[in-house]
Amino acid sequence: MRTLVPFAAVEPKTRLDSVLTADERAEFARVMLRSVCQTLQAAGSEPIVLSTAALEATTLPAGASVVVDDRPLTTAVNDQLTTDTPTLIVMADLPLATPDSIRRLTAASDAAGNDVDIAIAPGLGGGTNALVVRESAFRVDYHGASYLDHREIAADLSATVETVDSRQLATDIDEPSDLAEVLIHGDGPVRAWLVDAGFELDRSDGRVGVRRR
Amino acid sequence: MRTLVPFAAVEPKTRLDSVLTADERAEFARVMLRSVCQTLQAAGSEPIVLSTAALEATTLPAGASVVVDDRPLTTAVNDQLTTDTPTLIVMADLPLATPDSIRRLTAASDAAGNDVDIAIAPGLGGGTNALVVRESAFRVDYHGASYLDHREIAADLSATVETVDSRQLATDIDEPSDLAEVLIHGDGPVRAWLVDAGFELDRSDGRVGVRRR
Repeated sequence: MRTLVPFAAVEPKTRLDSVLTADERAEFARVMLRSVCQTLQAAGSEPIVLSTAALEATTLPAGASVVVDDRPLTTAVNDQLTTDTPTLIVMADLPLATPDSIRRLTAASDAAGNDVDIAIAPGLGGGTNALVVRESAFRVDYHGASYLDHREIAADLSATVETVDSRQLATDIDEPSDLAEVLIHGDGPVRAWLVDAGFELDRSDGRVGVRRR
Repeated sequence: MRTLVPFAAVEPKTRLDSVLTADERAEFARVMLRSVCQTLQAAGSEPIVLSTAALEATTLPAGASVVVDDRPLTTAVNDQLTTDTPTLIVMADLPLATPDSIRRLTAASDAAGNDVDIAIAPGLGGGTNALVVRESAFRVDYHGASYLDHREIAADLSATVETVDSRQLATDIDEPSDLAEVLIHGDGPVRAWLVDAGFELDRSDGRVGVRRR
């Protein structure tokens, strides 16, 4: 199975601009990307980063490769799907992803040896955080409520769909409140980066948030 | 295994007050409670609702029972934990919970026949949405970041802890944006209630939200 990790190299994570500067967002996005690549490697995959711009040599772990494509996410991914090779697509902002959660997704796409055409790990708010595509006619559409759109696209192709129930894969890091999930559940370099940057849990509200020193 | 479902019968779901009236919140909370009880029954459990007030006879499905205790959540639950019987505690606001996700939690507490003292399904924002307690000295503390607190309480007892990776169990319904998860992923009476009340997905933002007609 081929493994793609789309990455927006320029001006990433704009919805974190209330708590991180542009330089910090670029650095934080790369720390998350590296973490996701290492998780995929630990799950037995060989990640190919599909980046909108060339990356510094130190960004990726040894063994991960890069394809540069500066077109929008959906276009760039679909260009990679014109093949019969089963493809795993994992977003670069999933620092809570674990080898086990990745393996649960790939196992769901291959239930008891019966290939499922599309296996989806939904994100919070209707996104598609990770996806296995085994149907060569399937195309992604990451705009808007992509989880619902991907189900519709699959239905139009009469393709079979499995959904994976994973909090770790559902937690993409887009907004300040998402950082709390990393502080609560993370145990790797992404959490360490946030702590170094002065983030700590704010337990004053109903749900725990973050504040920055 | 005994199964408890704590329920705040009076003035529930106050953080939904911007989109639901007090009467609607009371009704919606009961629709969710009934749904959780039915899910637990489908998973083979016999739910006992630990309610802060008596409930209308029609609220619960046949077979579910009620214990009334008007003390605060943590106190009422801990009073039920003074026993050696393994206990599953599931919050009443988890309409996405499925029999499979419940079974994954109970299986995690009994991995390969080796009982785990505490198995936790964390909620978003550091909560504890479902919990299996096999250590009779363990006491809950639902205030604040209870997931972290429960891990600390377990560590103080040298109790073993497993965490379950479930989006369905992580999604408690507290805030308006949570309603989007029910519209996206739900397929039962809780989703139907929201649709009847005029809620629909609002796809205009980054993450999908809700609006009410």
